[in-house]
Amino acid sequence: MIRGGFSFNLAGMVIPSSFSPPERYLMGPGPSQVPPAVSSAMARPTIGHLDPEFLRLMDELKEMLRGVFGTKNACTLPMSGTGSAGMETCIVNLIEPGSRVLIGLNGVFSTRLADVARRAGAEVTAVEVEWGRAVDADALEKAAAGRKFDLVATIHAETSTGVLQPLPALRALAERLGALFLADTVTSLGGVAVDLDANGIDAAYSGTQKCLSCPPGLSPVSFSERAMARLAQRKAPVQSWYLDLSLITRYWGQERVYHHTAPINALYGLHEALRLVLEEGLAARQARHRQHSLALGAGLEALGLRLPVPTAERLPPLTLVSVPDGIDEVRVRKFLLDQYNLEIGGGLGKFKGNAWRIGLMGASASRHHVSLCLTALSQALRAQGFTPKGDALAASAAVYDAG
Amino acid sequence: MIRGGFSFNLAGMVIPSSFSPPERYLMGPGPSQVPPAVSSAMARPTIGHLDPEFLRLMDELKEMLRGVFGTKNACTLPMSGTGSAGMETCIVNLIEPGSRVLIGLNGVFSTRLADVARRAGAEVTAVEVEWGRAVDADALEKAAAGRKFDLVATIHAETSTGVLQPLPALRALAERLGALFLADTVTSLGGVAVDLDANGIDAAYSGTQKCLSCPPGLSPVSFSERAMARLAQRKAPVQSWYLDLSLITRYWGQERVYHHTAPINALYGLHEALRLVLEEGLAARQARHRQHSLALGAGLEALGLRLPVPTAERLPPLTLVSVPDGIDEVRVRKFLLDQYNLEIGGGLGKFKGNAWRIGLMGASASRHHVSLCLTALSQALRAQGFTPKGDALAASAAVYDAG
Repeated sequence: MIRGGFSFNLAGMVIPSSFSPPERYLMGPGPSQVPPAVSSAMARPTIGHLDPEFLRLMDELKEMLRGVFGTKNACTLPMSGTGSAGMETCIVNLIEPGSRVLIGLNGVFSTRLADVARRAGAEVTAVEVEWGRAVDADALEKAAAGRKFDLVATIHAETSTGVLQPLPALRALAERLGALFLADTVTSLGGVAVDLDANGIDAAYSGTQKCLSCPPGLSPVSFSERAMARLAQRKAPVQSWYLDLSLITRYWGQERVYHHTAPINALYGLHEALRLVLEEGLAARQARHRQHSLALGAGLEALGLRLPVPTAERLPPLTLVSVPDGIDEVRVRKFLLDQYNLEIGGGLGKFKGNAWRIGLMGASASRHHVSLCLTALSQALRAQGFTPKGDALAASAAVYDAG
Repeated sequence: MIRGGFSFNLAGMVIPSSFSPPERYLMGPGPSQVPPAVSSAMARPTIGHLDPEFLRLMDELKEMLRGVFGTKNACTLPMSGTGSAGMETCIVNLIEPGSRVLIGLNGVFSTRLADVARRAGAEVTAVEVEWGRAVDADALEKAAAGRKFDLVATIHAETSTGVLQPLPALRALAERLGALFLADTVTSLGGVAVDLDANGIDAAYSGTQKCLSCPPGLSPVSFSERAMARLAQRKAPVQSWYLDLSLITRYWGQERVYHHTAPINALYGLHEALRLVLEEGLAARQARHRQHSLALGAGLEALGLRLPVPTAERLPPLTLVSVPDGIDEVRVRKFLLDQYNLEIGGGLGKFKGNAWRIGLMGASASRHHVSLCLTALSQALRAQGFTPKGDALAASAAVYDAG
């Protein structure tokens, strides 16, 4: 199993060499490029999870997360797991056996959310929606068929398809159905306006390795007062001890009751990453994501590639690109990685094998990344006999020139 | 909420200063001291979770974990959460609603395990045992009352009391009851012999921030073939999607099916930490933990302090110390932290307020740490009018001189 260099210890056990990762340009569906300030923050000395200095860090993290989420929610904190743990946190805290959940299935992550909810004992009403399109509130309302629901869930930014979900109609629907409104903001937080309070989102989760440009491993979560009230009124205990917010908020709140040992150094990284987000400013950061996404899209279309998601529904941090007929998509990705140290993502679910996913998240949303990707992709396609229609760099430059 | 330095962004949002943790001597119940090689490994460039180089790292991690666990188990991997997530992983994969679990309650972590199992729908038979003592297999067998069980669970190293649990009698009991045998090795792995295969342990979990001397955030887990067969034969789905080993092993195995985005940089740290463990050698590392624990114990008793756990049941990486009458234990810990940058732990559960927990884990198991702790603790006690009985440093030196 050991394929790199190695040595032996006195007992004859194989010890692999220290790991030296290559320096990649990360334009997949996450992780995104991590700024050196964030990586080096993670290498700072570990301290205890009840150290007064660490408690101060926790308070600052909550405050910065509130700023980035656009909320005053007291319960706003990073869960000790990746984005999927955040998804499960929202579900297991808000759902009891028999709870009713309404969701539109338009990608891998909405499908996952429905699965997680069923495992928690929910009765899930799921509406199949075309992948690569936003969910239509009317279709959900029809499926609700006049019944009350406990939760209306949506994927604000579908990382499997590159669709940005409009929120107001779903929010209004949740209100009419008597439901709380849950949003997956894994690929939107820090790159697209999320504004929990303004959007009436009761519960949201995210990840660190997308538009926050931090390594993966943590999941920021926020619960409104209504969501916390739901949690307080539960009859059944939260099925997960590890993700039980009624316990975790006693550690992240001022009681400081030990729950589990927080992932100290990962939280140093998130602290630094959030500082960078706030220093840039949310509006400027969102505009940056939008601009580079437009430039990338223009370049890709100039090459003659098709973007399946309608312009109005495109998610700036993630662009879905159809693989042209006759092109071996795996070979293209291998070419980019081997020749340019450039990672883009393959398709997921219904798009597996027929689309690429190109991420422009956080520090990866730069003109350098856009130009590198267009150049490298153009060459990878030519290597398989595909003749680009036009000049991708010129098309992207036109977007930048227009400002 | 922001108590350190700060600035503002253009939108008027407060941005705290970059976090500079103090350099602590970590002698609490974990996290332990992290060697610079491990911290700096975590700062290396982030790469993708499906990058061929990352897949190689995963294979090396599994191989090294097998070595440290003492097992050939194919399913041996780090879960993307802390030790408590590892506990929950073992439970939710092995337990279905109605499964029978047998456990002795002699500390916080066995109590937690019983709670986690009940939340997963298990019927838990729990035997109350004196805290600070090992669990007696006969008492468990009596409670079993001739019934068959699905799982016998034990805490190999009780971090709340400093007790090392002997395994053979419990293992034999599990066999007689038709049960799988689960062991919590959070505070033993890397510091005390664990030897899963030799000890007939079917499932085990651990943490990184104890004797592996890595920051917290990951939980190494290992399942035997019998445990994997149990998982394969389940009728009910695993209640947690995030912790479902039937999905996770498809990513950590050769299929490489995406499950969640692995915590890349934390895994760099674990890789380096495991390398250091193997370079030192398991036997030498266990001997080191034993020696420093004996020296610490001798020094503490020379001071006139009482160690509640009987010598034969003491856990080398964690020593429980009674707080003498009339001593304010919180003030002692504050003195150590403020005057010496030294962290020791307070008591947990039944020992809250009346005991300290002193950790000698991984890189914290050193003569320097032992001497510093004895010196500082002696002064902290004198500051409250306690007169040490004898010379702690001389008593610990005698242990070192004896070799």
